[in-house]
Amino acid sequence: MLEREKIAQARELMKREEIDVWLIYCRETSEIPEPALTVVAGTPVVWESALIIGVNGESIAIVGGPDAPAFRAKGVFETVVPYDEDIGPALRQALSRLNPRRIAIDYSEDDVVADGLTHGMYRLLLKRLAGAPYGDRLTSAAPIVTALRAIKTPEELRLIRRAIASAEEILAQLTKTLRVGLTESEIHQWVSERVRRRNLAPAWDAAHCPTVTCGANSPIGHTGPTDAKALPGDIIRLDFGVKENDYCSDLQRVWYLRRPGEVKAPAEVRRAFDTCRKAIEAGFAALKPGVVGWQVDAAARKVITDAGYSEFKHALGHSLGRNAHDGGPLLGPRWARYGRTPLARVEAGNVFTLELGVMTPAGYVGLEEDVVVTASGAEYLSKPQTEIVYV
Amino acid sequence: MLEREKIAQARELMKREEIDVWLIYCRETSEIPEPALTVVAGTPVVWESALIIGVNGESIAIVGGPDAPAFRAKGVFETVVPYDEDIGPALRQALSRLNPRRIAIDYSEDDVVADGLTHGMYRLLLKRLAGAPYGDRLTSAAPIVTALRAIKTPEELRLIRRAIASAEEILAQLTKTLRVGLTESEIHQWVSERVRRRNLAPAWDAAHCPTVTCGANSPIGHTGPTDAKALPGDIIRLDFGVKENDYCSDLQRVWYLRRPGEVKAPAEVRRAFDTCRKAIEAGFAALKPGVVGWQVDAAARKVITDAGYSEFKHALGHSLGRNAHDGGPLLGPRWARYGRTPLARVEAGNVFTLELGVMTPAGYVGLEEDVVVTASGAEYLSKPQTEIVYV
Repeated sequence: MLEREKIAQARELMKREEIDVWLIYCRETSEIPEPALTVVAGTPVVWESALIIGVNGESIAIVGGPDAPAFRAKGVFETVVPYDEDIGPALRQALSRLNPRRIAIDYSEDDVVADGLTHGMYRLLLKRLAGAPYGDRLTSAAPIVTALRAIKTPEELRLIRRAIASAEEILAQLTKTLRVGLTESEIHQWVSERVRRRNLAPAWDAAHCPTVTCGANSPIGHTGPTDAKALPGDIIRLDFGVKENDYCSDLQRVWYLRRPGEVKAPAEVRRAFDTCRKAIEAGFAALKPGVVGWQVDAAARKVITDAGYSEFKHALGHSLGRNAHDGGPLLGPRWARYGRTPLARVEAGNVFTLELGVMTPAGYVGLEEDVVVTASGAEYLSKPQTEIVYV
Repeated sequence: MLEREKIAQARELMKREEIDVWLIYCRETSEIPEPALTVVAGTPVVWESALIIGVNGESIAIVGGPDAPAFRAKGVFETVVPYDEDIGPALRQALSRLNPRRIAIDYSEDDVVADGLTHGMYRLLLKRLAGAPYGDRLTSAAPIVTALRAIKTPEELRLIRRAIASAEEILAQLTKTLRVGLTESEIHQWVSERVRRRNLAPAWDAAHCPTVTCGANSPIGHTGPTDAKALPGDIIRLDFGVKENDYCSDLQRVWYLRRPGEVKAPAEVRRAFDTCRKAIEAGFAALKPGVVGWQVDAAARKVITDAGYSEFKHALGHSLGRNAHDGGPLLGPRWARYGRTPLARVEAGNVFTLELGVMTPAGYVGLEEDVVVTASGAEYLSKPQTEIVYV
């Protein structure tokens, strides 16, 4: 079972980080999901809940009475302690029995997936622990959670490969459907319909997945499709992925609509495409265990700027897994907004996107591949786009 | 537009609470949604973002470059300030211009929908504001956010009515389909399929919506359906709602499978049903603006305990809206786990569930209705179940 695989992995990380107890403290996760809860429990909670994972093998779920049957049925946590009115006594009792020196809780300035504890719940936790000696033993669980999320198990890799294959199949169908005159909205709708028919979900919010841009006037970024039509001489570019069995893919692909008489895209479009390709290859070549994220980004970024293009305004790559943006180490530049994430070392089992693009008069050329870090380098999970596809 | 309606409402609440600026500070809301962002912006964010609403009419969205087009397209925030590397300068500049005495941020020990600021983001905010005088002016936005979420606008009421009607239609179809021998899982699947065919979503996580219990041995609570069969002499009970255009319904209904020769359910089942009905009516009668939540709960709870049944282990009613558990004031007992929510005063425009149940040898009798608080009392939004439905 995936949850047990991940808890075993968490305990190894806890040993490495000298953490005695990992405490996930959350409530109403259908309103505000706790990313770590999803990974280790596989079932949501409604009432205020404390999930306790001890480094020595204990696992205790202190949950509201109505949440207890689902935890018992799931069978991941050995001990399920239901409460009716006040979680405090059971929580203090469990901690007192384990008497941990260091208790890790889920907050992180850098990594959203390790930041599932809300500020109100943090304040509430301090109240629940008042009078007990544990308030001073709290520390951030980010070193555990970030690695837990970022280092994929074999089962997780299998699921990500499946989500990539589904997205690639839909994109291959799309190639046969694209034609002059379709609007961005129509393309978005066509792809969304294929996702729905396969009983899949888009990898990010439906309004922006896929992102579709046609031609040079389309706004780039996390924006919805417009009624702009794909016209001869335009680049069509999709940023797209699916979520399948809780795991995601994330790809960017480009097509070119030839003008009457054109055999190839104009030289400037081909040069842009080739530069993007080379930049992704440069990032791919730099990617291996032990390298620091910003160095991989820099290798790709240099290819773009050396060719005289403006550098892309985002990181080369982000983690991919349960979410299209899966938190954790970043293959990105050392910009303030990225915090310490570009300083993290790459580890085997990490799955990243490699994505970048440049603007041309025909539209935005954006490419994005999905890769896994192996013992000695990296491996493509997607089939890289190596040539412009003509419509 | 709904978002503009809600921002106007927020400004009225800010005046009442003497708040100069409401600051929503979040990132990667597809991983960890910020409930207040959803209400006032209507578009998610990826990069670290600061949404600033001034009491005097200013509205500023400081968002990452890729998020800016969606905010501009939505047109809710007057000023959209994109940044590339560091949100800090634009954030400090905007606050310096408004020079607020009190800045409300989204944390709450009591109310999940007002607790959208994670602890890591809180720490990051203090860093971003270091050197500026605003760190000491921060206060909880809960009085604004809780009321904003809990007091529905006419448009929101229209959407909730629509979601209730859809759930009622599906339940009416189900009545025609129920028969001896169906398992809980089959009933769950049948209902889920009807939800899907209507292009709706379940009101809470799909595995537990609907909750289906058949007979007396089925675990009660937020649990998934089992392979237990509905047999003659069993009560079938569903806890079910749909999400339609982002608004939810939440109902509980019961059926009784007659034994050969039975005309009515056994006396103990009928007595349980009638007691639940009366208890809901007692809660309904007590519900009006100005009353405190726990008083409404107590009115219903007394009917149950006076009849000699164990009291229900949850609140009589919760807010209903964008989420089935919509945060805010609670019609619940003063138990530690409910914090201060049962002490909040009911206001006109609040939408609540009224739900309770008792166990019988034939299974759990659970009823749940949806109601809106009016100027002088309350009004049913659902058609209350007034009789046991026989299969």
